This record gives sequence, C-alpha cells and structure tokens, in this order.
Amino acid sequence: MSNKGDYLKRLRRLEGQARGIQGMVTEDKYCIDILTQISAMTSALQSVALGLLDDHLNHCVLEAASAGGPEADRKIQEASQAIARLVRS
Amino acid sequence: MSNKGDYLKRLRRLEGQARGIQGMVTEDKYCIDILTQISAMTSALQSVALGLLDDHLNHCVLEAASAGGPEADRKIQEASQAIARLVRS
Amino acid sequence: MSNKGDYLKRLRRLEGQARGIQGMVTEDKYCIDILTQISAMTSALQSVALGLLDDHLNHCVLEAASAGGPEADRKIQEASQAIARLVRS
Amino acid sequence: MSNKGDYLKRLRRLEGQARGIQGMVTEDKYCIDILTQISAMTSALQSVALGLLDDHLNHCVLEAASAGGPEADRKIQEASQAIARLVRS
Repeated sequence: MSNKGDYLKRLRRLEGQARGIQGMVTEDKYCIDILTQISAMTSALQSVALGLLDDHLNHCVLEAASAGGPEADRKIQEASQAIARLVRS
Repeated sequence: MSNKGDYLKRLRRLEGQARGIQGMVTEDKYCIDILTQISAMTSALQSVALGLLDDHLNHCVLEAASAGGPEADRKIQEASQAIARLVRS
Repeated sequence: MSNKGDYLKRLRRLEGQARGIQGMVTEDKYCIDILTQISAMTSALQSVALGLLDDHLNHCVLEAASAGGPEADRKIQEASQAIARLVRS
Repeated sequence: MSNKGDYLKRLRRLEGQARGIQGMVTEDKYCIDILTQISAMTSALQSVALGLLDDHLNHCVLEAASAGGPEADRKIQEASQAIARLVRS
C-alpha cells in the first residue's frame, strides 16, 4: 500500500463520522441533516475504495501481469470482481 | 424516528467495521479483502440511509403534506434533494 | 408530469447515446472512450429518474398525503421502494 | 473486444428500453412504473460497462503490463480513472 498512514487517517475519520451520526440519532437531530452526513460518509468510503483499488492495480496486478501466466489472469479476474462489487454497492 | 435503538445498533456496527478495516490496513491484509469489507460497509450505510428516508417520508413529510401550504412544498423539496444526494453518492 | 416535452427530449437523447455507443463498438473504438460515454449515459439516466421522482412526490404523493388515509401510506411506501431501487441500481 | 455481437445486442436492447420509456411518458403511464424501467435500464448499462472493463483489463491492460514501461503505467492510470467515473456515476 502506497500510503498506509493516509488510509488510516481517512478510516479513523470514517469511524468518527459513524460515531457522530450515532450522536445525531441519540439527540433526535433532523433526519435530513443525518442523511446529509451519511451521503458524505458514503462518498468518503468510495474514495478510500478507489484509492485502494488504484494502488492494487499499480502494484499487485501490474507485477502479476509482468510475470504473466495463470496468476496474471487470476489477479485480473479478482480485480474485476472487486470493481463490480464497488459499482453495484 | 420509528426505531432509534435499531439505528444506533446498526451505526455502532458501522463504527466497528471502520475500526476493523483500520486493523486490516495496519496488518497489511490483502487489498481485495479490504475492498470487500468496504463494499459491505457501503451497502450497510445505504441501507441505514434508506431506512431513515422511509421514516422521514412516513412521518415528517406525510404530516407536512396533510397540513398543506408552503411547508408541505418545502418538505418535499428538501426530501428530493436528500434523495438526489443519496443516488449520486 | 410537469414537463412531458422536456422528458421526451432527454429520453430521445438517451436513445441516441445508446445508438452512438453501438457505433463505437462496431468501429472498434477504444474501450475507455466507450466507458466514458456509458458513464455519461448513466448520469443522464439518473438525472431523468430524479426529475420524475421529484414530480411524483410533488404531485401524486402530495395529493394522496393531503387526502390522508391508507392511500397516503400506500403512496409513501411505493415511493420509498422506488427510491431504494434507484439508490441500489 | 471478446464478443462484439453480444455487446451490440445488449446495446440495441438498451436503445429499445429508451424508446419504450418514451412511449410510457407519451401515454402518461404511472411514474413509479417508469422509474422501475429506468432502474432496470441503469442496471443493464452498468452491466455492459463492467463487461467492457473486464475485457479491457484482460486484453489492453494485461498486454501493456506484460510489455512494461511507461505505457503500462499509463494504461493502469487510465483504467483507474474510468473505474472512478463508473463508481461515482
């Protein structure tokens, strides 16, 4: 992973957002404001996923593809399936 | 909100997922496995959002619409904008 | 529907985009360029859906909610399910 | 492209769906039914995109990665950007 510290920081922020939304629910904050926070959290989560996927393609997949053989095919297939899960989630 | 306890439970689980993914990053787990967890977390987050939105339509929007007047229009517009943010996030 | 002519124009454009992408496939255009067109088409489609949903909430749902009774509940439930399909598609 | 005929068939079906939805708008069909068709069309479109992307990774990207050098990096970056557009659209 190219920048572990950066991912950890973003994931800690996501954990904080999940906690913040709990606080909003507990204090009966307005539904629409809670939904706005959830949309922001979803975008942040997608952005982490796209970063990880880019790293994965640049390292793991690129290396396997250079080496060639069935491992290269397997890595590409695995990446394709992960992309499909992201697009559909 | 129809079931505050249920939302809090789901949000605590989301907080735990964000923490679990941090652990995976720290321990250099395989990227594809981390991405699978992120997809699951995104789906769980969307599901909380759809539940909150359904509650909001059933209570806040329905009441305002019964009362009528500009407040009804305002509530519908606000809900539409929240839906657009969800669909696009 | 508030503006039938506008929806028809946007849907005809979407039909044209689907035809244009067929042309790109036939002529072996570069995959990434085809994907860019598909992303644009998906956004345009979502935008039509959000417009229709907004119209639906402002007319059908608002009227049913003003009238009250089980029909109002049914309309809200139906709208919620349509929103869930959009968010998850 | 691994199966041009199959993509063309699916794209013609998408063109037909766009035309069918125009018919529904013209005949003032119920909004919720139109939205159901749009969700189906969006899923079909995503599925074409995921197929094309998988083909692209298996051919174009795999070949460039085997050859190595800056072209490999460029292809990976290009694919990453296309994936980001899909996930966010």
